Amino acid sequence: MAISATMKALLLKGEGYSREPPAARLDTLEPWLDHATVAVPRPEPSQVLIKVRMASINPSDLMFIQGLYGQPRMRGRPAGFEGVGEVVAAGSNAAEALIGKRVAFATGTSNWGSWAEYAVAEAAGVIPLIDTVRDEDGAAMIVNPLSALAMFDIVRGEGEKAFVLTAGASQLSKLIMGIARDEGFRPIAIVRRDDQAEFLKKAGAAHVVNAGSQEFPSALRRLLKAEPARIFLDALTGPVASTIFAAMPRRARWIIYGGLDPSPTAIGDPGLFIFAGKRIEGFWLVEWMRTAGERRLQIVGEAQKRFSDGRWSTDVTAIVPLSEAMERLPAELAKPNGKVFIAP
Amino acid sequence: MAISATMKALLLKGEGYSREPPAARLDTLEPWLDHATVAVPRPEPSQVLIKVRMASINPSDLMFIQGLYGQPRMRGRPAGFEGVGEVVAAGSNAAEALIGKRVAFATGTSNWGSWAEYAVAEAAGVIPLIDTVRDEDGAAMIVNPLSALAMFDIVRGEGEKAFVLTAGASQLSKLIMGIARDEGFRPIAIVRRDDQAEFLKKAGAAHVVNAGSQEFPSALRRLLKAEPARIFLDALTGPVASTIFAAMPRRARWIIYGGLDPSPTAIGDPGLFIFAGKRIEGFWLVEWMRTAGERRLQIVGEAQKRFSDGRWSTDVTAIVPLSEAMERLPAELAKPNGKVFIAP
Repeated sequence: MAISATMKALLLKGEGYSREPPAARLDTLEPWLDHATVAVPRPEPSQVLIKVRMASINPSDLMFIQGLYGQPRMRGRPAGFEGVGEVVAAGSNAAEALIGKRVAFATGTSNWGSWAEYAVAEAAGVIPLIDTVRDEDGAAMIVNPLSALAMFDIVRGEGEKAFVLTAGASQLSKLIMGIARDEGFRPIAIVRRDDQAEFLKKAGAAHVVNAGSQEFPSALRRLLKAEPARIFLDALTGPVASTIFAAMPRRARWIIYGGLDPSPTAIGDPGLFIFAGKRIEGFWLVEWMRTAGERRLQIVGEAQKRFSDGRWSTDVTAIVPLSEAMERLPAELAKPNGKVFIAP
Repeated sequence: MAISATMKALLLKGEGYSREPPAARLDTLEPWLDHATVAVPRPEPSQVLIKVRMASINPSDLMFIQGLYGQPRMRGRPAGFEGVGEVVAAGSNAAEALIGKRVAFATGTSNWGSWAEYAVAEAAGVIPLIDTVRDEDGAAMIVNPLSALAMFDIVRGEGEKAFVLTAGASQLSKLIMGIARDEGFRPIAIVRRDDQAEFLKKAGAAHVVNAGSQEFPSALRRLLKAEPARIFLDALTGPVASTIFAAMPRRARWIIYGGLDPSPTAIGDPGLFIFAGKRIEGFWLVEWMRTAGERRLQIVGEAQKRFSDGRWSTDVTAIVPLSEAMERLPAELAKPNGKVFIAP
């Protein structure tokens, strides 16, 4: 396949990190991204060049473009952490066998992201796809599925069947709840709208609790008496998360993997830590992958199997052409329950 | 020794727990204690009755009388978790060998506290004292010394030589810093007053930082670049503690053992947990003792040795007669740097 010299991409405007609080809603992408032309990159020896078919948009991408993610931005480089596409060039002979293959990929720290016509990924990390995996599933096969399986490992390790998750209607929560139900666990999904209850019970939730209701703290306390969940997988932080943590039983672990609620987060009564032995910690997929060893390969295989046999599938809100992304993404991202993709 | 039928004691007014926030300063003890007469208790088979010579006052006692400690109050029973005294009766023959011995004791969950002429403790937990240990040291030999040695075990386990502690001028911090210096560790003591620096450096602090100064956050950040402390032993919570936690390096552990600052505590940026891998947890001596096994006996021996040979000694602010306690304790407790005792 002929490789162009230049490409269209959504390029980062900011450099490094920001100290601004995150935007609660993205009404526009103008402060952070530019739809522009840039030279097509050349892969390093350990890398491959991928012609992007579809790129996903995760909460971590939206934090990254604002300078609020765990790695620094490089101004003028494309954003986008994952996608699906065809390998068109290899940085060294070792990876030439991948050329022509359709792969799921994560761009990691290559600084050549997936919201572009071409992207760069480590050859060792790409996942050749079997034909039964759709592009929509392939483009969202790494960040969310691996996070889901890795975080469910924490739940399984704790032993207690019930556990709590916020952002219950997110794609990631849906994946976690699907695995949990299959293994006899009982997810308690915390949501903001009553109309999500049915959809979430289908996805695997044992209980759905609306944090917006007036009786939320007391209803949750009652539920947690019957279902003594110890693990709290939290995408939000803020006052709802604090309330959940306070209501949980002794030795509860609040595991923060996102901060979607920009309001301040209080730890509550110090006795929660001293006398009740509770803890607050974090989860970051990048750190997990660095230390997971063998378990990482098992989990990649498990993710592909689940998408192939239909136990998992990605709900699609919209597939937006790259050229229309700046204009259309804010409105598409504001819709609940599904995933938004970019197609170059 | 003849045992009276009744005794004077400081009796708890409240029952169970309270949901009130802790008092920032105790201007009076009237809301929580009564100086009154009560029948002398009879020890259970596993317990001994002790004629109290001196009882200590720890921050945990002050939390307990307000209903803010990890065990419920029993109305009409004496407060006070530890002291020194003479064993005058045993609940069963097994403990009779202790009769007549001067012992350090903790009343635990006996509900017959040490702020009284007689107290009840588990026979297995009392520590017969050698003559070279002063009453002042014996009366403060369990809660603080065991906490100090147990928390220093956490510091030692982490490996990094530098560590941070708040309430740097407390008796407990002084004990921790003494052990730390002896083993080549470098305590960073956070205090509220500049005039404590010299006293704390003598006690073992490698650095003393005033949290009241305007340059506190930046000065602390600079110091922690040079001394990458991972463990933060915190008696305060509140905004000063949050600032320290934010300034600490990756994988820092904020270990809360007290909540002396009643103002709300924010966790700060969720990225501290997600990307920097930091954690918040608690320390409670009662829980530690439950699980420490052999290490507990070693630590009791180590504490007595340190008090006998002068490496540790308790700074005494005042020894207040039980009959004057209600009136005098608030003013004595407000003085910095030393310990207040009650003598029945």
